[in-house]
Amino acid sequence: MRIIVIARMFSAVLGIVALFFLPGLVLSAIDGETVVTGAFAGPMIAVLAAAGVTFFLTRGRGGELGVRGGFLVVSLSWAGCALLGALPFYFSGAVPSFTDAFFESMSGFTTTGASILDDIEAMPRALLLWRSTTHWLGGMGIIVLSVAVLPLLGIQGGQLVKAEAPWPTVDKITPKITSTAKILWLVYIGLTLLQIVLLLFGGLNLFDSVTHAFGTMATGGFSPKNTSVAHFDSVYVDTVITVFMVLAGTNFLLHYAAITRRFDKLVADTEFKVYLAIFFGSTALLTLFLSLNGAYEGGAGIRFASFQAASILTTTGFVTADYDVWPQAARVVLFCLMFVGGSAGSTGGGIKVARIVTVFKQSLNEFRHLSHPRGVFPISFNRAPMARRMVIAITSFVFLYIVIVLVSTLILSLEDISIMSALSTALATLGNIGPGFDAVGPTANYSFFSEPTKWFLSFLMMAGRLEIYTVLVLFSPGFWRS
Amino acid sequence: MRIIVIARMFSAVLGIVALFFLPGLVLSAIDGETVVTGAFAGPMIAVLAAAGVTFFLTRGRGGELGVRGGFLVVSLSWAGCALLGALPFYFSGAVPSFTDAFFESMSGFTTTGASILDDIEAMPRALLLWRSTTHWLGGMGIIVLSVAVLPLLGIQGGQLVKAEAPWPTVDKITPKITSTAKILWLVYIGLTLLQIVLLLFGGLNLFDSVTHAFGTMATGGFSPKNTSVAHFDSVYVDTVITVFMVLAGTNFLLHYAAITRRFDKLVADTEFKVYLAIFFGSTALLTLFLSLNGAYEGGAGIRFASFQAASILTTTGFVTADYDVWPQAARVVLFCLMFVGGSAGSTGGGIKVARIVTVFKQSLNEFRHLSHPRGVFPISFNRAPMARRMVIAITSFVFLYIVIVLVSTLILSLEDISIMSALSTALATLGNIGPGFDAVGPTANYSFFSEPTKWFLSFLMMAGRLEIYTVLVLFSPGFWRS
Repeated sequence: MRIIVIARMFSAVLGIVALFFLPGLVLSAIDGETVVTGAFAGPMIAVLAAAGVTFFLTRGRGGELGVRGGFLVVSLSWAGCALLGALPFYFSGAVPSFTDAFFESMSGFTTTGASILDDIEAMPRALLLWRSTTHWLGGMGIIVLSVAVLPLLGIQGGQLVKAEAPWPTVDKITPKITSTAKILWLVYIGLTLLQIVLLLFGGLNLFDSVTHAFGTMATGGFSPKNTSVAHFDSVYVDTVITVFMVLAGTNFLLHYAAITRRFDKLVADTEFKVYLAIFFGSTALLTLFLSLNGAYEGGAGIRFASFQAASILTTTGFVTADYDVWPQAARVVLFCLMFVGGSAGSTGGGIKVARIVTVFKQSLNEFRHLSHPRGVFPISFNRAPMARRMVIAITSFVFLYIVIVLVSTLILSLEDISIMSALSTALATLGNIGPGFDAVGPTANYSFFSEPTKWFLSFLMMAGRLEIYTVLVLFSPGFWRS
Repeated sequence: MRIIVIARMFSAVLGIVALFFLPGLVLSAIDGETVVTGAFAGPMIAVLAAAGVTFFLTRGRGGELGVRGGFLVVSLSWAGCALLGALPFYFSGAVPSFTDAFFESMSGFTTTGASILDDIEAMPRALLLWRSTTHWLGGMGIIVLSVAVLPLLGIQGGQLVKAEAPWPTVDKITPKITSTAKILWLVYIGLTLLQIVLLLFGGLNLFDSVTHAFGTMATGGFSPKNTSVAHFDSVYVDTVITVFMVLAGTNFLLHYAAITRRFDKLVADTEFKVYLAIFFGSTALLTLFLSLNGAYEGGAGIRFASFQAASILTTTGFVTADYDVWPQAARVVLFCLMFVGGSAGSTGGGIKVARIVTVFKQSLNEFRHLSHPRGVFPISFNRAPMARRMVIAITSFVFLYIVIVLVSTLILSLEDISIMSALSTALATLGNIGPGFDAVGPTANYSFFSEPTKWFLSFLMMAGRLEIYTVLVLFSPGFWRS
């Protein structure tokens, strides 16, 4: 691992993120919030200066980073961004506890959307804009962004992009990873702009439109409103956000395929079809259970059902209804969706549909082995056979994910909350969802947790966003052996 | 599949089980319970006659059963035994609902120990003896028993034994499967007798000693007392049962190795060491959480902690304390143990320690692959490398297990019980444990469920006992294609 290359990459990422302090800085100046302006300006100037110096000193020193260097720099960059992102909250005094500020920032970058704010609307607008901006930066990925805008870094970007989102090995839609990264970000920006316009049409002001579009496209879930999207109580707004949550949870390479009119790609994509089937299936189940229960009049059931199904499945975490008082069967549908997550190559978190499909196919495949013990039956994915090595890697991931959820549940239960609270907290943070059940339900927040637990949850959010191995490999003894 | 061979095997198994009506028949006659005597005698005579006729008609018609025939006859036999076992409960009028009688019988044979009886002690003794006998027969396995006592069946027994307990491929401790089956049952009988004697020493009467030994060695959990083992409130009884639960959850081939003084086998056995580590580790955690909470005085914490850890880990389900009112962290420890289960080759259910170890090793192995993408790192089990094919089969099992738990949770939530109740019901029935949390907690029972749910739970118990694939393969389309 070459320390200079790591320092160069790290400072590049933090420098880019610091530039995004600018909108908050300007907005706070307009609002006359001088303290907030200072809380943005100070860290921004310091980081840009440090990054500039590092960049100058390491000029021309690109080259190989190595597999392990990739993991290290990606984990370091994410931790560094969360730290940097916490500073405006903390220095402005709006969030007096540094632990809380860090938690909120990490929750933002990882697109979790779990909040420690008891009264969101009391916060200065500039900080709420920054809070939603962390979502938007983390959604498509700060590493992907860096690779896209700084090809001059001279670092092999493929390894880094893989470490930020290990699955899938980014399809070579273009021969160069920098071009792919650019395309992903352009599609992401385009969809975000489109949603902003649609929300403006719905009567939202520019601030609400931008923040909610950031929260949606990043599958984040931070809303500047205390009651989340329920605040607007609008069928139109709910519908727009539902549709864009589903789009955000879709593989962005498929959006690109659709834009370039290669619709055959969409039809051939197993994950996309299963993802839509899960969304529509769970919406149907939720609507059924809600109508049996008589909770909503007329078509209202399908409105709240589809919104919440999309919100939990894509790991966004926006809320339009207190689903914790829904009938038990409806709650279990949402509980099961917490194990799924978005598509690979989307901004969604969780285990991801592609992995679920793979392991499911393999499990069903065992039936063929049982009846024909000597047969060889490889499973296929998108019509191509999948190597056993790949199947094992994916099933190992799923198992490790569940083990971490259970161990975290045990650790969280030391707070003496109910098992369901602890279990759903683990699922909601590792899966970057946000709200869970009971103590962390849709009308609650994360402020009541103790400081050590908040740090632990921050770690879970980061591990979940970087798909576990990228972070945990740093703690494996073999990693540091040269 | 040869229908005649299947009929021969099926009638043999049911005939053997019918013979075990005899103790109940005699006991009911002694107690002067004429109706109960009739409820035993009728089905017993009918089944023995039918089995005898089938046996006579198919004499000399042994031979190949085939892989698929094996799965079919094992599933049929288990369903048939549960049906037969329900008759004394139903015909005696002690359990007026046939659904309930079948549930109780299936719960017995599968060593689940989930009961629909609201007042156990009001039942005739003969029926309680039969209830515990179903545990004992199901514990080591009715198929293994049949293979052991009827080598004259002329059917290849290895395939059947594998279908009854698919993991591990029974080690060839003797060249013949019939000899291995005999050894397993002799060790099982020996340990049961030893426990009966030890319980008699503790002041229990013969009836209580026998029924509790049956429930322990089978990792069943039915007690003829309303308050389960807490009834005796004896440190000695708790200790004996704890030790024998741990023994029952151990691979019986290791007991045989210990008896024949090959202690190196025990030391070399990874699963055994992990199993003990889980037991002692969870006991330590439970003791810690209970002492922090101040729930028990002095050494009482370790007594109740070790008993409940052994009871849930081995999937027995006996109860000496209302663990549902324990601190949350202690409840989560038990919740996590519900995902583990006993050892392979034991009478315990659940996922089984060997599978957990395998998938865990594989997950950690991924870290090596991450740092060295081109390396080949097979995992080893008991110092022998494990084939990728085997790893995939095991991880598939674990995934399918969890999927079935989640889907069952959804189905059970239609009863409008809490998620935790539904989730733990699924874990407690599929894992053959018995008690769960909340609505099915240690002081509750299963009588409140609707009739369709009871049939569904009976199916789950059987699928769990036969390790899922043996039952589900019958529903796969490929199975019935010739």
